[in-house]
Amino acid sequence: MSNFIWDKDRLSRTGVAEAVLCSNKSPQDLVDIIEFNLQDKTPILLTRLTQTQWAKIPSEIKTALEYDEVSQTAILLPQHCPTPQAGICIVTAGTSDLNIAKEAQKTLVFNGFAAPIYADVGVAGLWRLMDKLADIQQHKIIIACAGMEGALFSVLSGLVRAPVIAVPTSVGYGVSANGKVALDSALASCAPGVLTVNIDNGFGAANAAIKIFNQFNSSSET
Amino acid sequence: MSNFIWDKDRLSRTGVAEAVLCSNKSPQDLVDIIEFNLQDKTPILLTRLTQTQWAKIPSEIKTALEYDEVSQTAILLPQHCPTPQAGICIVTAGTSDLNIAKEAQKTLVFNGFAAPIYADVGVAGLWRLMDKLADIQQHKIIIACAGMEGALFSVLSGLVRAPVIAVPTSVGYGVSANGKVALDSALASCAPGVLTVNIDNGFGAANAAIKIFNQFNSSSET
Amino acid sequence: MSNFIWDKDRLSRTGVAEAVLCSNKSPQDLVDIIEFNLQDKTPILLTRLTQTQWAKIPSEIKTALEYDEVSQTAILLPQHCPTPQAGICIVTAGTSDLNIAKEAQKTLVFNGFAAPIYADVGVAGLWRLMDKLADIQQHKIIIACAGMEGALFSVLSGLVRAPVIAVPTSVGYGVSANGKVALDSALASCAPGVLTVNIDNGFGAANAAIKIFNQFNSSSET
Amino acid sequence: MSNFIWDKDRLSRTGVAEAVLCSNKSPQDLVDIIEFNLQDKTPILLTRLTQTQWAKIPSEIKTALEYDEVSQTAILLPQHCPTPQAGICIVTAGTSDLNIAKEAQKTLVFNGFAAPIYADVGVAGLWRLMDKLADIQQHKIIIACAGMEGALFSVLSGLVRAPVIAVPTSVGYGVSANGKVALDSALASCAPGVLTVNIDNGFGAANAAIKIFNQFNSSSET
Amino acid sequence: MSNFIWDKDRLSRTGVAEAVLCSNKSPQDLVDIIEFNLQDKTPILLTRLTQTQWAKIPSEIKTALEYDEVSQTAILLPQHCPTPQAGICIVTAGTSDLNIAKEAQKTLVFNGFAAPIYADVGVAGLWRLMDKLADIQQHKIIIACAGMEGALFSVLSGLVRAPVIAVPTSVGYGVSANGKVALDSALASCAPGVLTVNIDNGFGAANAAIKIFNQFNSSSET
Amino acid sequence: MSNFIWDKDRLSRTGVAEAVLCSNKSPQDLVDIIEFNLQDKTPILLTRLTQTQWAKIPSEIKTALEYDEVSQTAILLPQHCPTPQAGICIVTAGTSDLNIAKEAQKTLVFNGFAAPIYADVGVAGLWRLMDKLADIQQHKIIIACAGMEGALFSVLSGLVRAPVIAVPTSVGYGVSANGKVALDSALASCAPGVLTVNIDNGFGAANAAIKIFNQFNSSSET
Amino acid sequence: MSNFIWDKDRLSRTGVAEAVLCSNKSPQDLVDIIEFNLQDKTPILLTRLTQTQWAKIPSEIKTALEYDEVSQTAILLPQHCPTPQAGICIVTAGTSDLNIAKEAQKTLVFNGFAAPIYADVGVAGLWRLMDKLADIQQHKIIIACAGMEGALFSVLSGLVRAPVIAVPTSVGYGVSANGKVALDSALASCAPGVLTVNIDNGFGAANAAIKIFNQFNSSSET
Amino acid sequence: MSNFIWDKDRLSRTGVAEAVLCSNKSPQDLVDIIEFNLQDKTPILLTRLTQTQWAKIPSEIKTALEYDEVSQTAILLPQHCPTPQAGICIVTAGTSDLNIAKEAQKTLVFNGFAAPIYADVGVAGLWRLMDKLADIQQHKIIIACAGMEGALFSVLSGLVRAPVIAVPTSVGYGVSANGKVALDSALASCAPGVLTVNIDNGFGAANAAIKIFNQFNSSSET
Repeated sequence: MSNFIWDKDRLSRTGVAEAVLCSNKSPQDLVDIIEFNLQDKTPILLTRLTQTQWAKIPSEIKTALEYDEVSQTAILLPQHCPTPQAGICIVTAGTSDLNIAKEAQKTLVFNGFAAPIYADVGVAGLWRLMDKLADIQQHKIIIACAGMEGALFSVLSGLVRAPVIAVPTSVGYGVSANGKVALDSALASCAPGVLTVNIDNGFGAANAAIKIFNQFNSSSET
Repeated sequence: MSNFIWDKDRLSRTGVAEAVLCSNKSPQDLVDIIEFNLQDKTPILLTRLTQTQWAKIPSEIKTALEYDEVSQTAILLPQHCPTPQAGICIVTAGTSDLNIAKEAQKTLVFNGFAAPIYADVGVAGLWRLMDKLADIQQHKIIIACAGMEGALFSVLSGLVRAPVIAVPTSVGYGVSANGKVALDSALASCAPGVLTVNIDNGFGAANAAIKIFNQFNSSSET
Repeated sequence: MSNFIWDKDRLSRTGVAEAVLCSNKSPQDLVDIIEFNLQDKTPILLTRLTQTQWAKIPSEIKTALEYDEVSQTAILLPQHCPTPQAGICIVTAGTSDLNIAKEAQKTLVFNGFAAPIYADVGVAGLWRLMDKLADIQQHKIIIACAGMEGALFSVLSGLVRAPVIAVPTSVGYGVSANGKVALDSALASCAPGVLTVNIDNGFGAANAAIKIFNQFNSSSET
Repeated sequence: MSNFIWDKDRLSRTGVAEAVLCSNKSPQDLVDIIEFNLQDKTPILLTRLTQTQWAKIPSEIKTALEYDEVSQTAILLPQHCPTPQAGICIVTAGTSDLNIAKEAQKTLVFNGFAAPIYADVGVAGLWRLMDKLADIQQHKIIIACAGMEGALFSVLSGLVRAPVIAVPTSVGYGVSANGKVALDSALASCAPGVLTVNIDNGFGAANAAIKIFNQFNSSSET
Repeated sequence: MSNFIWDKDRLSRTGVAEAVLCSNKSPQDLVDIIEFNLQDKTPILLTRLTQTQWAKIPSEIKTALEYDEVSQTAILLPQHCPTPQAGICIVTAGTSDLNIAKEAQKTLVFNGFAAPIYADVGVAGLWRLMDKLADIQQHKIIIACAGMEGALFSVLSGLVRAPVIAVPTSVGYGVSANGKVALDSALASCAPGVLTVNIDNGFGAANAAIKIFNQFNSSSET
Repeated sequence: MSNFIWDKDRLSRTGVAEAVLCSNKSPQDLVDIIEFNLQDKTPILLTRLTQTQWAKIPSEIKTALEYDEVSQTAILLPQHCPTPQAGICIVTAGTSDLNIAKEAQKTLVFNGFAAPIYADVGVAGLWRLMDKLADIQQHKIIIACAGMEGALFSVLSGLVRAPVIAVPTSVGYGVSANGKVALDSALASCAPGVLTVNIDNGFGAANAAIKIFNQFNSSSET
Repeated sequence: MSNFIWDKDRLSRTGVAEAVLCSNKSPQDLVDIIEFNLQDKTPILLTRLTQTQWAKIPSEIKTALEYDEVSQTAILLPQHCPTPQAGICIVTAGTSDLNIAKEAQKTLVFNGFAAPIYADVGVAGLWRLMDKLADIQQHKIIIACAGMEGALFSVLSGLVRAPVIAVPTSVGYGVSANGKVALDSALASCAPGVLTVNIDNGFGAANAAIKIFNQFNSSSET
Repeated sequence: MSNFIWDKDRLSRTGVAEAVLCSNKSPQDLVDIIEFNLQDKTPILLTRLTQTQWAKIPSEIKTALEYDEVSQTAILLPQHCPTPQAGICIVTAGTSDLNIAKEAQKTLVFNGFAAPIYADVGVAGLWRLMDKLADIQQHKIIIACAGMEGALFSVLSGLVRAPVIAVPTSVGYGVSANGKVALDSALASCAPGVLTVNIDNGFGAANAAIKIFNQFNSSSET
């Protein structure tokens, strides 16, 4: 008997397909899940799939997967959407936040959304953000990734009409070693309307953005 | 010289009017702000206005304000929208979360939105939530208020298509004394797509919901 | 002189035999303890025995031990009870909680109890729990293992008559990285009567369940 | 419309009647709840009812309530069970833990259980505990209340066959100011099988003990 | 025997005169200190002198003191410097930070420095800061006061050549309730060179600024 | 039945008489304890007896007690030792630490020890400590009381042969608001041999010093 | 120029010779220190010398050192005292605390003291402690090492006249993972007079015990 | 498209050139940044460049870099200033703080400043600091590096006229394991005017010192 129960209805019930968080899962559990979906011909997204875990997946299964080392994601039976839905963008404070930004991007693309990244626009050099602001303002929802003190969340939110989904990242050292300061900065933001997800949770931010889009563009889907 | 600078452009720049967080403000600062807007004939929302602060406001100014003790809000020059925008609802785990739920409600109503509250549907008695679920599912965005262990956020988010904005409340004692457990439960939710604001921040949750609505319904408003 | 004092009377004094927590013990200390009990022909349970520690135990001793890598347990002189005592079950929120669930299971089986596991019934997909609920309700005591936000504890406890012993697991990342959120959720549960043990302490939960059973069924056993 | 939903089925569903945690509830909410049950002739238990709250309840309603200042509990329509169920006792480390011990006692008595208290048997003077040990050992379940460093939990659990339900209390100062050290001592106990509830949660400990009893003595009740 | 030892040499040894932190001091201790300096004709600065403490000081002594309620400071034998030293300014994120800004201002003025305050220039409305930037940039050292998420520290430091001394304030609620988030934001700032003092320590920030000035302008003073 | 068990043997068993920590005790409990010892003609020490508690003790009992408001102690049947034992002194960093220093002093004097206090010798003005150093060095054991950053513990311990018992005090604000920084400074001291007790625990420090003295001078006492 | 300054006077100034904490020191710094003392023919104690560091010390120097892997200590120019000073003993709760107990033992022996260890007498099986109690009571000072919940400190201190120096150890998992619970239990102990040092600081406990002895037995030594 | 945006104007805007924090950056990102500046012939400073990262940089690029293993810094196109600016010194409590002191030193030297280090002058042996005090007092700004309890910050600041910039280091174990105690000691210092940067942030301290110097010596530079 396998150890997991597949939530086949999640897509219809909540508007987002179930994905697989690979942390703490044994190689056997991962293979069980992948094979179950392969047989079913169901594309799935795997997140937090470390290189160590990836190395232990049998190579005959690997051929059905598209693995990305930076974002630690893999897609089973990847299918490329010819006309992705626009309206969501991703902004990062530094280049060190890119792995998390790319987890969000992979999740969005897997679900049929375009997801441009505006990287390295942190507030220590405000002109970097100002340079890109007009582009960023074109989007209906903004996912912002920042570590250290997370000042980007407040500054950005004061400059745009779009809701900002903050993804605090575990980039930093000393008091900011594990993302807690960036998280609390998002929560305590003086700019009203900043929304927050867990530290390093690019996947969750993308899910929330998709849920929002589905609510308003779902005329044909409900 | 008064100590504040009024952000007159905030509405056009970010889609939400500036409100006044009254905590830590002296009576004189509050009166300055109110009078400035009275002269300007600008309706404003005041939040976290304690009864002690309210008692110190001169009565001739009070007549222009509508004060609500439970939510600790006041509205200057209140205007009642005949056709409020539907689509957002508020859910609470217990009756103790109502003061925060009502801060969210006041903020929504002030901005022209309807905001029904579904109270006391916490997960210890799951049937209470199930009874109201069909009604709750009619809304495009759900604001959920819960203290203690905040299990409502995950359960609710797994049952609806709408994005859930979690407002952890400072209801509880012992380990949950100040809302930290409910906050962390929202952030660590196993249900992808839960979005979080600061503890007791009903105002912020309402702002975020309004920003989302404005993004998708703003064709006629901008 | 060896460094340990064996608590031979614990079984009669407290109703549960002494077991060996292997963490922080040197290979020599472990061998001393095992040989002492081998000579005595006393079956014992070793917990938190890592693969690294296991590898350092001399092979002539290993033959008397049954080692399980997932639960990091070993049993000296294992004896299989033909008619295990029914009434206790184990429930997990996800497949990632299985190693802890199995530590509880090994402890129960070693002490003569049956211990079925109902895995992957977390609350993000409530129907998974509902599907198994009738089976789970057949048991007198329920051990529940969950990490992340630990919402399972409250939901489950509201649905059953049995006392729920919560085992928070160190499954999660960001704010829930080490099991603290799941622990606090169990302690702050809105469902009265949830009992808690330390993070990842499947062994302790099983001991408590056994102590409860012994109290009520011990007429013939003492 | 009142703000609460009464969980009438909780008794049959979980084996324990719903009680009312009065913290954070407004006087009007409390009166609504009491009157609802008065009309229904349903005895209920109110916990954490402060003297300030009690003073605001109308006197015509007070006559139907039995209020205890030390434990901050009140019972609506109290009924005294002539033959309370024996088997549960309460132990406290110091006299300062008595208010919490009495919350547990009131809860047990309200549900038809006898609940003797053995007070002031903390481990700094071990003979005080030893003097009472034979009496304490007569019980099937022990609720232990201790603040400060909570050493009582481990010592007691090593001396009895009964499961120990630890109630850490917020008695102490400096590092132990709010019960966190006593809580963690219970969770980290070197004596296997200690079960824990939230700080100062005498009510929860009593509920758990009742649930255990109901499971094993319920032949005639289910 | 009085309980204090006056540090008469501090001014010559460290460049700053000893001041009196009144917190935790009894009325008698305060009177002893004031009288000691009155006899000596030494002007001193008292900080954190609450209204309650102030009320208990005998009125014949009060006449020699200039008390300011907002900053909770008093000056014994105040002397107004006709040509204060320019070069230091104070910036605040909101009006709620003014009490701390004024503690810094009083300390500077007492020591012969001019200390203009630029209030309410927090980053949620970036134009408020931009409007004042040219003025702020005229100063050699900037003391910045901000609570909540403290994003002002990083933004400001990226826009000026002057060193920024951050004073995190205990303005906020929920995660930012006591100034810890603002403090950590200052420490973790992505803008290199931000210097920090304790939460609400306007006095310390002013002292540091004075020490810096004394080092570079002391040719004629030492 | 009274709620306490008096530990009459503690003096002979541990070398220190039992004292009464009054925190969290009801007026009735305090009166019971005092009357029990009055009848027994046993002098006792009461600590942490607030003015509020003191006001509620019946005046006929008060006459047998010597109350000190600063140290919040009372002594029942006080007896003044004509030839107190020398060798222990108390040192404080500031005048704000005096209430704790005096709790230690009262405890020592009650037990027959002399206990001079050297106040206000904190390290910000090192000469204040140096001035008193020769006197301090005459003692066999030093109790040091300091709040804020607690640097006194390390500096003092590096200058004397006597063991230093550190009493961190809850004097400070911001990061040092409740004595935690001073406590951790004592524990992490770079000067080997610093010993620590709980925050504000002057009583405990005095007890430890007495126990040490009793061990080495007890030839005639045991 | 070498990076260290040797404190040659520490022995005469404080009664304990300087030792070397090897953590964070580079191999070159360690060799510099050892050679400096070798030339000087001064025996020294090195603590926290990991096997990795030990492996990098040149073998010609190693011959002058006695290294002990369990306690991570080394002694330069070891000299064995024929008549060690009696009166100090070390007690451990479990076998896992032995490495820290042995650091204390090595420190004591290096300074001319006998230091017997009574291991594995934790309170879960109280008889183990009772069995050794008469022996333990023969000592003037007791160093107690315990991890997990640290209940040993309070129980032991209530049973002996000697002062107890608590060494909390980093033995445990979950809430007690790094020794914090054991530390706080020592500080919050209900048994007055427990003294505490930093987590895992066997060296510091031994230093304090030596300082105490030197104070009382130093007539012939100073 | 590369992932970074170079802040070419930072030098003129803030007075300090942009440096590269290498933590969390991929080898490719590092190479992109180095090559960009090589082509531009711009000297840059790289900090927190681990040996692992250094090993992955292509050797043809390495020849343009000067790498220092202890401070984990590298300088691109190093240029040695013949007449460095005097006035800043660095002080360390122990030899274990040297790696952080050297990060500060490298930063200062790269920017044209002399930066002598006074090492191992911690307060446990106060004479070590006193020996060097006259030299240290010659400087206008002092950067002090200390871990453990950080008592050096307060003692030093009380002895000099110069402002002290505290760099808490992550040297210590137990309660001081990650530099938090040293940080809080700096913030809570009883010596007014201590300024603080993040734990282990030698780079930030140097930047702040440079900014201060630039402000006062910039007549010819602005």
